[in-house]
Amino acid sequence: MKRIYLDNSSTSYPKPKSVIMAMSDYFYENGSNLQRGESSYNFDAEDVIMSLREELSKLVSSNNPECVIFTPNVTTALNTVIRGYLKSGDHVIISPLEHNAVMRPLVENNISYTLLDSDSFGHVIEENIKKSIKKETKACIIQGANNVTGCVQNINKIGNTLKEYGIPLILDSAQSLGHIDYNLEKDNISILCFTGHKSLFGPQGTGGFITNSEIIKEIKPLIYGGTGSFSDLLTQPDNLPDKFESGTQNIIGLMGLNAAINYLKDNKENIRKTERELRSYFISLLDNIKCIEIHSYSDEIPIVSISSNSFDVAKLANFLSSNNIQTRVGLHCNVMTHKFINTYPSGTIRFSFSHFNTKAELDMCFCYIKEFLNEEGLL
Amino acid sequence: MKRIYLDNSSTSYPKPKSVIMAMSDYFYENGSNLQRGESSYNFDAEDVIMSLREELSKLVSSNNPECVIFTPNVTTALNTVIRGYLKSGDHVIISPLEHNAVMRPLVENNISYTLLDSDSFGHVIEENIKKSIKKETKACIIQGANNVTGCVQNINKIGNTLKEYGIPLILDSAQSLGHIDYNLEKDNISILCFTGHKSLFGPQGTGGFITNSEIIKEIKPLIYGGTGSFSDLLTQPDNLPDKFESGTQNIIGLMGLNAAINYLKDNKENIRKTERELRSYFISLLDNIKCIEIHSYSDEIPIVSISSNSFDVAKLANFLSSNNIQTRVGLHCNVMTHKFINTYPSGTIRFSFSHFNTKAELDMCFCYIKEFLNEEGLL
Repeated sequence: MKRIYLDNSSTSYPKPKSVIMAMSDYFYENGSNLQRGESSYNFDAEDVIMSLREELSKLVSSNNPECVIFTPNVTTALNTVIRGYLKSGDHVIISPLEHNAVMRPLVENNISYTLLDSDSFGHVIEENIKKSIKKETKACIIQGANNVTGCVQNINKIGNTLKEYGIPLILDSAQSLGHIDYNLEKDNISILCFTGHKSLFGPQGTGGFITNSEIIKEIKPLIYGGTGSFSDLLTQPDNLPDKFESGTQNIIGLMGLNAAINYLKDNKENIRKTERELRSYFISLLDNIKCIEIHSYSDEIPIVSISSNSFDVAKLANFLSSNNIQTRVGLHCNVMTHKFINTYPSGTIRFSFSHFNTKAELDMCFCYIKEFLNEEGLL
Repeated sequence: MKRIYLDNSSTSYPKPKSVIMAMSDYFYENGSNLQRGESSYNFDAEDVIMSLREELSKLVSSNNPECVIFTPNVTTALNTVIRGYLKSGDHVIISPLEHNAVMRPLVENNISYTLLDSDSFGHVIEENIKKSIKKETKACIIQGANNVTGCVQNINKIGNTLKEYGIPLILDSAQSLGHIDYNLEKDNISILCFTGHKSLFGPQGTGGFITNSEIIKEIKPLIYGGTGSFSDLLTQPDNLPDKFESGTQNIIGLMGLNAAINYLKDNKENIRKTERELRSYFISLLDNIKCIEIHSYSDEIPIVSISSNSFDVAKLANFLSSNNIQTRVGLHCNVMTHKFINTYPSGTIRFSFSHFNTKAELDMCFCYIKEFLNEEGLL
């Protein structure tokens, strides 16, 4: 039974072959550490990683490669920013759809929050932002695209509204970078947190944050330790990116991410076009089914969640899984969104696509959905 | 010119081929996330990672796989423990040889420390530990083997001495696990921090800490976020290992580490025997050179550092590097040790071996050392 992978918003699969080839090349041919040696191998590895920083910086129309900071995942990036830029007692404004990667650091670090006004999909109403700002408000944290519904926020409008009030915008781009273009300066994004292993097509273990040279000075590191620089200091050095990158980095993973970013750069238009077609095709198939509700709010994000009052979505997910179709069901680490769209506590079954998927796969998936509904007596 | 890699204490190279093959197999055949899906692919990946936790637990004669916590490197493990178990104003006792991965978190988090009495090599004098303990002393942090000199601490004796005073022992095993066997219970180690990419032969991006079920309850996480469990909670769940493993983990790296641990298990005796032979052989070659001082304090750790009053060790490292021999020169992120052994600020040139090295490589390296000394007019 052919495997059909529809869980790309959890982690994309497959990845471009060039990703594992870059990792394998580094593994066999180089293997050296960064900033911890003076050989050509060390320098070669450092050159690739610097080039990766440059490409990531360019990806958000910036030009500060030293302000591209790597972390093992976007969750660690968000924690670094939340704990390193904010402090206990501070206040932030957030959308009503934020992921546990934002909510749990806020709650556990005693940072209060106000939910911004939004429409019924969760889109922030920019005109109403002002009324949520208090004098202790230190930042606005927004998920660029929602991981349950694909709801896309108008970051340009939000960022420029916040600019009027001097509130920095921290963007959680876990589900949007790659699908959507950002411009740090024009969108007034102060800190963009990203993951490498979803829509950038890199390996797990990669991610980070990208910022400009000013605000980064105000962020304290979460991790202190050896940086291969200023080793005579018992305090953390201030130079970038070392300040935030103590200990040996996931070099082999970053080699993969570098190949992934090059792949994305070369194929962006085709990737996006295919993803949009797949999303709209899948919705067109589902549109005929009366007992389901579709949650898929933007054609830029290839996520289609469904819920139902007539059957248990977990049962559908298990049925699909037993037929070798991978999806993700439940709350998707985002209880805020499920409460907002009234799918709590059962959650939704989420189908998320990449350009490696095909319409034939979606046809097959739809056949199994119909078979399930038929067995449930719903067709 | 054949490459000779003598920087295994920075990161081991080469690694066993089975490591990249396990990564590649996961990359092509599975690719799925952990605890974020219900398919056989998710379960297969989870099984491997659980088996890895079991093997790592067994490696330290423990049997608590859920108390094996993964972090991207040993530095993050140490930061998690230092910031999560200790608080500002606490006091710790440490050896005089601690790495910046311990010193910088202590200093930056305002935790005071007392250096334990030691002999001239840096071995802690267990009988004198008591006098360094204050009423606010919360832990003892010790590097199992030193990354500059290979100085090995008697962890069993230190751990059992601390037990008398109820002080938990936090072990930094970055340079020792793999080379040396530990037993969490018999050695009275409360928390063992480890790296995957040195003497365990795994990829960079892997590491963690191993503990027992009691003390782990007292450690607060450093990173909060989605765990794929208890997603309805806006607070961090307490279940292990989830409490400490928010966000997508470096699954592909852990697949490599799993293969590495199996390799180590199958080859441990041969690895250790070869490393010891290489170390003693290299020392026997160097012993005839009058203008150098050798710092290599244990036959269990294949590290040989040299310093000199007659020439600049950085110049030697560059000369070797230009002849395709990789070493590491300088302070090795450990200014404490260099001040202790009087090699500050110039540092040492460090030669560190794995069983993949050969005597022929050491002969070749020695020839180049002699050529350098000859050019310097020192032979």
